[in-house]
Amino acid sequence: MMTVYNFAAGPATLPDEVIQQIQTELPSLQGSGMSILEISHRSAMFDEIINTAQQDLRDLMAIPDDYEVLFFQGGGTGQFAAVPLNLATTHHRIALLDSGHWAAKAGDEATKLGVTVDTLATTKGTHYDKLPALTMTLPADTYDYMHICTNNTIEGTAYHALPKTSGVPLVGDMSSNIMAQRYNVSDFDLIFAGVQKNLGPAGVTIVIVKKSLIKEVDHIPSVFDYSLFAKKNSMPNTPPVFNIYATGLTLKWLKSIGGIDEIERRNQKKASLLYDFLDHSKVFNNPVKPADRSLTNVPFMTGDAKLDDAAVADLTDHGLMNLKGHRSVGGLRASLYNAMPFEGVQALVNELYHFEKNL
Amino acid sequence: MMTVYNFAAGPATLPDEVIQQIQTELPSLQGSGMSILEISHRSAMFDEIINTAQQDLRDLMAIPDDYEVLFFQGGGTGQFAAVPLNLATTHHRIALLDSGHWAAKAGDEATKLGVTVDTLATTKGTHYDKLPALTMTLPADTYDYMHICTNNTIEGTAYHALPKTSGVPLVGDMSSNIMAQRYNVSDFDLIFAGVQKNLGPAGVTIVIVKKSLIKEVDHIPSVFDYSLFAKKNSMPNTPPVFNIYATGLTLKWLKSIGGIDEIERRNQKKASLLYDFLDHSKVFNNPVKPADRSLTNVPFMTGDAKLDDAAVADLTDHGLMNLKGHRSVGGLRASLYNAMPFEGVQALVNELYHFEKNL
Repeated sequence: MMTVYNFAAGPATLPDEVIQQIQTELPSLQGSGMSILEISHRSAMFDEIINTAQQDLRDLMAIPDDYEVLFFQGGGTGQFAAVPLNLATTHHRIALLDSGHWAAKAGDEATKLGVTVDTLATTKGTHYDKLPALTMTLPADTYDYMHICTNNTIEGTAYHALPKTSGVPLVGDMSSNIMAQRYNVSDFDLIFAGVQKNLGPAGVTIVIVKKSLIKEVDHIPSVFDYSLFAKKNSMPNTPPVFNIYATGLTLKWLKSIGGIDEIERRNQKKASLLYDFLDHSKVFNNPVKPADRSLTNVPFMTGDAKLDDAAVADLTDHGLMNLKGHRSVGGLRASLYNAMPFEGVQALVNELYHFEKNL
Repeated sequence: MMTVYNFAAGPATLPDEVIQQIQTELPSLQGSGMSILEISHRSAMFDEIINTAQQDLRDLMAIPDDYEVLFFQGGGTGQFAAVPLNLATTHHRIALLDSGHWAAKAGDEATKLGVTVDTLATTKGTHYDKLPALTMTLPADTYDYMHICTNNTIEGTAYHALPKTSGVPLVGDMSSNIMAQRYNVSDFDLIFAGVQKNLGPAGVTIVIVKKSLIKEVDHIPSVFDYSLFAKKNSMPNTPPVFNIYATGLTLKWLKSIGGIDEIERRNQKKASLLYDFLDHSKVFNNPVKPADRSLTNVPFMTGDAKLDDAAVADLTDHGLMNLKGHRSVGGLRASLYNAMPFEGVQALVNELYHFEKNL
């Protein structure tokens, strides 16, 4: 049987060890005779699971004690609403750095909910080939927060240094590079991330938020209410039990291999291999400014849509899956999340090399 | 090894066949080399999964073509917000029949979001020992809808006949008895249900809504937007892929055993066995008016909290799990959802009989 590598942008590949553990213990969790798919969220077993997942998140990301770690449903798109509903309650105005599709979507959702959104910088004019540069000093008493997307899944850029916000709270959508590289949590006031790229199966969203920002808010749906979730250990209602469990196993896996520092080293190595190939290729090109390149998402193209399609077809034939680029960018895209092994990227680069040679 | 039966109120027991199938195909879905935990929601494989689940829901519940079948995250509590946000847009006023904890919670959430809630009948005064009777005719041009909870998980009542709404749209929270008994979908204008009691692992909420009620609404979070979800086949953003897949398998299982008519017959038989025992017991009592008794949730008690605890402990020793009653009611509670086999209820009744005899 051919080894298959899954380069999907998310939901994405998970560690084999995690899938094997889930499979092994699926019929009976900890000898209980009950499946993780059946246990009550009010059980001692699940309390242990959710508390361990929170603690492992704290350990891995070095989350300070003055931050809450919460689990929601609804994905990043849910948080596009929840963040302004919880935080944009003083000025009803936020700042945005428009680094691509998902940053713009976050702005659109805040606008839809009645918040004023000031886009302070954008690289839309150059198809988001680099990060927008914030050249102004943020004015005092104007913004409830500034939103950035730390990694742009579609465009293939990532913040390796953060913009200065002059005391305005910084909100980071880390959905596609949470724990793929080291960030200093205390540089942010709020971080959110769907787990389905680096940390688990789709259906859980992690929110890490400074306790001092959490307050009781009127007219907010309960499933978005940070204050309520903080009080109820993320369980004012039934949480996605299985998804939190599977995420917890992935966190344990990440700890076992050496945590974020080690995975960042591996991710650097994987990304370098691919970028080096692309930078030396006569056919394929990555359009992103080198300093802003993402470790986790690498778009590339030939400039000829038919040739791009032929490359995707050839890669698919060799078990290198889901490499078609996002429709807004075209070409190809390789997502190299935490669970993608180095061997997968080697196989990709080898086959791209052969494809190019045989043209 | 002792056979374990899980009487939890939810998340709840699933069919063994479903858990076995998930376990078998976990490492590689349909020979793809990828786990269901890893596949993209934009893949042809997942399109087939979500479309099949929708069709099986339509087949099982005989859902007319003028209803949409949608999948959300956020549970019933999410829909407590989503329903008024989508539907309470003309009168900003809804009617409620207060049949217990979860009906009242739905009203509280609507109130929190600025909707006026008229509780037209309640049985709170008698600890929700029966359903509230709607004795008035609903006035025209007053209410956007009337909300009922078709089965009251905590109190153990269920609607076997529906109240007359005089043309006011009827919304049913069916979270704890969806597909456990036959309802006529066209008697409702909207039905919602978390899957975690009768249909799958926690993390998906089904919404069945009359197309004519769906409209574009301002200021609504996207993850609650019926119009958007209808347009995007429930995938404006990443859905909970695994949870929808597992729900789909449970729907197939239900079809394979004969659908709702057969499961209702089995559920009647299971519930009768337990109610008959309780009605003849000199120690245990079910406080609910017989005509309003739930098929899926049966609270019972001795009137002595210590004796209740002793019964729970004895049952637990015999592999009969999660029978402690809800704190607001006390005593014991047996949840007899679709996947609870008759043998489980036999084992429960046998042990209750022995417990009583040995007092």
